[in-house]
Amino acid sequence: MQQISVITLGVRDLARSKRFYVEGFGWKPVFENNEIVFYQMNGLMLGTWLEDKLKADARRAELKRPGAFSLAHNVPTREGVAPLLERLTQFGGTLLKAPEAPPHGGFSGYLADPDDHAWEIAWNPAWKIDAEGRVHFGL
Amino acid sequence: MQQISVITLGVRDLARSKRFYVEGFGWKPVFENNEIVFYQMNGLMLGTWLEDKLKADARRAELKRPGAFSLAHNVPTREGVAPLLERLTQFGGTLLKAPEAPPHGGFSGYLADPDDHAWEIAWNPAWKIDAEGRVHFGL
Repeated sequence: MQQISVITLGVRDLARSKRFYVEGFGWKPVFENNEIVFYQMNGLMLGTWLEDKLKADARRAELKRPGAFSLAHNVPTREGVAPLLERLTQFGGTLLKAPEAPPHGGFSGYLADPDDHAWEIAWNPAWKIDAEGRVHFGL
Repeated sequence: MQQISVITLGVRDLARSKRFYVEGFGWKPVFENNEIVFYQMNGLMLGTWLEDKLKADARRAELKRPGAFSLAHNVPTREGVAPLLERLTQFGGTLLKAPEAPPHGGFSGYLADPDDHAWEIAWNPAWKIDAEGRVHFGL
């Protein structure tokens, strides 16, 4: 099955990370303890885990930043992109790219979370997103 | 909405990456061109994009490996973990951690994809996964 159950982000300060995700995005944790916070997403979990724990669990000698990846969060309208980017910069995010219209359509910008993980905030009219936030390629 | 629409992984060789995801995992692309391959996942997209393109799009000066993150793929049974890890190492993956039973339950191991992105292959009886592969915290 084509399935991703969890995205785990290494974080250095759980409170700082929570401020970005809880106060910035407005998301609620579904579980948290003193080393990890889980958020219930659209059919998968987002985990923010103390980086040393993730490193030990995955048997990595080191973890570097910024990593060669990005996450994307879609908003329902073009007009919703800039205000969310602006809001997230007020809760620990760092703007990477002001929103613009890319060649392939839509409207999007990028910012880094407090642990330097990239998020694209996008309006993408070419993809169907259902009421539960689940994305399907095409319309 | 608590929503992740895309996980984009930076890759250096699309054919090498496709071998791992298509032949190893057995996943089918829903879209591909000469710089990106998209896979339709459980309510979100997995994109594998030439790293220089991702770097330019996100306005990053550099991208490093391995990044401080991990993805997880769940399998339905404990017995399914080891064979999938073994299979993926035959298609360009590198084992990071042989499967074991972690303190919080279940059974899992880690490997790196050909671009050094970490995947945990896990059996987790504590989380409900529906027929479409969507994960819900708790049972």
